[in-house]
Amino acid sequence: MVKNLKDPVAEPVAKFFRGKHFAFIGTINKDGSPQVTPTWIDLQEDGKLLINTAEGRIKQKNVSRDPRVSISIINEENPYSMVTIKGRVIGQTTNGADEHIDNLAKRYLNTEKYPSHSPTIKRIILEIQPEKIFYLPPRYTEYLQENNNNA
Amino acid sequence: MVKNLKDPVAEPVAKFFRGKHFAFIGTINKDGSPQVTPTWIDLQEDGKLLINTAEGRIKQKNVSRDPRVSISIINEENPYSMVTIKGRVIGQTTNGADEHIDNLAKRYLNTEKYPSHSPTIKRIILEIQPEKIFYLPPRYTEYLQENNNNA
Repeated sequence: MVKNLKDPVAEPVAKFFRGKHFAFIGTINKDGSPQVTPTWIDLQEDGKLLINTAEGRIKQKNVSRDPRVSISIINEENPYSMVTIKGRVIGQTTNGADEHIDNLAKRYLNTEKYPSHSPTIKRIILEIQPEKIFYLPPRYTEYLQENNNNA
Repeated sequence: MVKNLKDPVAEPVAKFFRGKHFAFIGTINKDGSPQVTPTWIDLQEDGKLLINTAEGRIKQKNVSRDPRVSISIINEENPYSMVTIKGRVIGQTTNGADEHIDNLAKRYLNTEKYPSHSPTIKRIILEIQPEKIFYLPPRYTEYLQENNNNA
């Protein structure tokens, strides 16, 4: 079990937070049912995870009610390598949230600015403390070579 | 809102269930927290979704307690096109589950047999009735052309 995403041993896990991998975040709806949403994600120097959403979106409302989240990411090169993180939203802030989404857009879209800024949408950063990290190394590599010579 | 995955209007959605797209399924843990797992997925002729897991796995135990699931899939060619399905596990069966995982392995791994059969693992099919289907058509195509000429 990896304790902290910034531990040296966590390098195979930290790789999931570079490049353009999408994270799938699970939250709890008001009626107790699950909600899964694909999202951009950012690993901070201190090992916390940042997700940038907008005020009033389902996942923002859900984590304001119940801060527990589950995050799943698969490796683009070998989707049979994955990381699952159980964590908790420990903070929410609109400070710097517009700049933060621009930085994410740079990484995910190769563009200077996030293309969907809107005066009616207030961006908000969700700060997530990972509590359990489960990492599965690449599997089935032999079956993937047809599609991907780097696998 | 697409009513049935097999409606003719649902073709853009049905496409997500061909090829090698992974589904991310959200379920509810015993303590009420969310759990997200990547999985292979299969769309049946009658519009129901099948997921093949093993008895005793977290998601199988979770849906036996609370059948509500959320399923999220992004398009491999344009990850900004996505489908989210709210549904319910209405049946579980071990009948045909070994053959079913072989069929999924054919599609996802290009192999005749699922490579991880084990005498100690009992495969089980979860049958899911979609209740709400949300589809987002491709976006940000202009930013993706550098990576993918088909986007």
